[in-house]
Amino acid sequence: MTPRMNTQRTDAQRMDAQNALDRLIILFSKLPGIGKKSAGRIAYHILDNNPALAHTLAKELSGLHQAIRRCGTCGGFTETDPCQVCCDPARDHSIICVVECAQDMRIIEDAREFPGVYHVLGGLIAPLEGVSPADLSIEKLAARLSGNASAVKVKELILALNPTIEGDTTALYLQKLFNSYDVEISRLASGMPVGGNIEYIDKLTLSRSFRGRVKV
Amino acid sequence: MTPRMNTQRTDAQRMDAQNALDRLIILFSKLPGIGKKSAGRIAYHILDNNPALAHTLAKELSGLHQAIRRCGTCGGFTETDPCQVCCDPARDHSIICVVECAQDMRIIEDAREFPGVYHVLGGLIAPLEGVSPADLSIEKLAARLSGNASAVKVKELILALNPTIEGDTTALYLQKLFNSYDVEISRLASGMPVGGNIEYIDKLTLSRSFRGRVKV
Repeated sequence: MTPRMNTQRTDAQRMDAQNALDRLIILFSKLPGIGKKSAGRIAYHILDNNPALAHTLAKELSGLHQAIRRCGTCGGFTETDPCQVCCDPARDHSIICVVECAQDMRIIEDAREFPGVYHVLGGLIAPLEGVSPADLSIEKLAARLSGNASAVKVKELILALNPTIEGDTTALYLQKLFNSYDVEISRLASGMPVGGNIEYIDKLTLSRSFRGRVKV
Repeated sequence: MTPRMNTQRTDAQRMDAQNALDRLIILFSKLPGIGKKSAGRIAYHILDNNPALAHTLAKELSGLHQAIRRCGTCGGFTETDPCQVCCDPARDHSIICVVECAQDMRIIEDAREFPGVYHVLGGLIAPLEGVSPADLSIEKLAARLSGNASAVKVKELILALNPTIEGDTTALYLQKLFNSYDVEISRLASGMPVGGNIEYIDKLTLSRSFRGRVKV
């Protein structure tokens, strides 16, 4: 029992590909981490659900760019400018944590480990992809370190950049650039993740764990 | 260097959790297959992107339930009633493929293997979850088989239900129910997936592969 497909349907199907459901699936599949199958599953879930879900989602999406802007000080996403972190007097404004993007700032905030303020670079130096230091928010960072932008003197700069080639390059660049400034520059420890296993760790990470070993 | 977290920020953070970005992340994380981290990644992607993406997505979502309804014949999602499959004269209306949900219908359509028409049950019989045959679109299927609903006599019913306990139960129920009808009832072959490995296949699937072996 193998009924052959009728090839004449192809054109009708292509036209059908323009209906509202297909358009939504195509849109969803363009979002990061969502493939074609997941996009279908999500669209059908929304369609099966109460229309209120679709309307709430639509409302939030259409208002998103009006509600959220970039903080003029740190560059993170916020509803108020300056953002809640930058204008919080309870935070330590003498420590700046430098991150690649606003999402990294959020992740560090969620860990509730860092009491200082942030600076979002907006990317990492990547010559092969055409990203040079001029494309990043480095001038603004320099202004913050010089004390022109704020009343509080910055004492420490924590570079919370990914331990990748681009992250290392950017960290090295910033370190050299701010060498003459009266500011302590550190970088997040690189090594074995908690719960990790020496057996499965790559050589580079193991080597970094050795070099960065901590006295007990 | 282990700066301790300032616990006074907790309340401010809770208030912050009500901003537009957080609301969107919460909404996304409720969709199937999207966790908290993916939801954050998607929301930041939309925010980083041109506002046009957010607006297009919002427009499609808000118009979705108006544009898409259920086909009165097969029960699939469609912009026109009856749907493009049900009113396509090029398709074989004497073969009905019975599927659990509208998404399964779409997946089978994408495979371009089946030339007939569909019937969406809207679920599977699952007594433990309180889903009885009365909750499914079985009466409508019976009407289609009796020839009351359409001019074309239905000759074959292909049960394209998942090879799970619920799928097996529903298939058995339908088989018994339509036993007296003059219609051939078949079920999708169950066995090893193409590209699969006997070494890793579970016993039940292997046993089904043996029972459903095909002459070469």
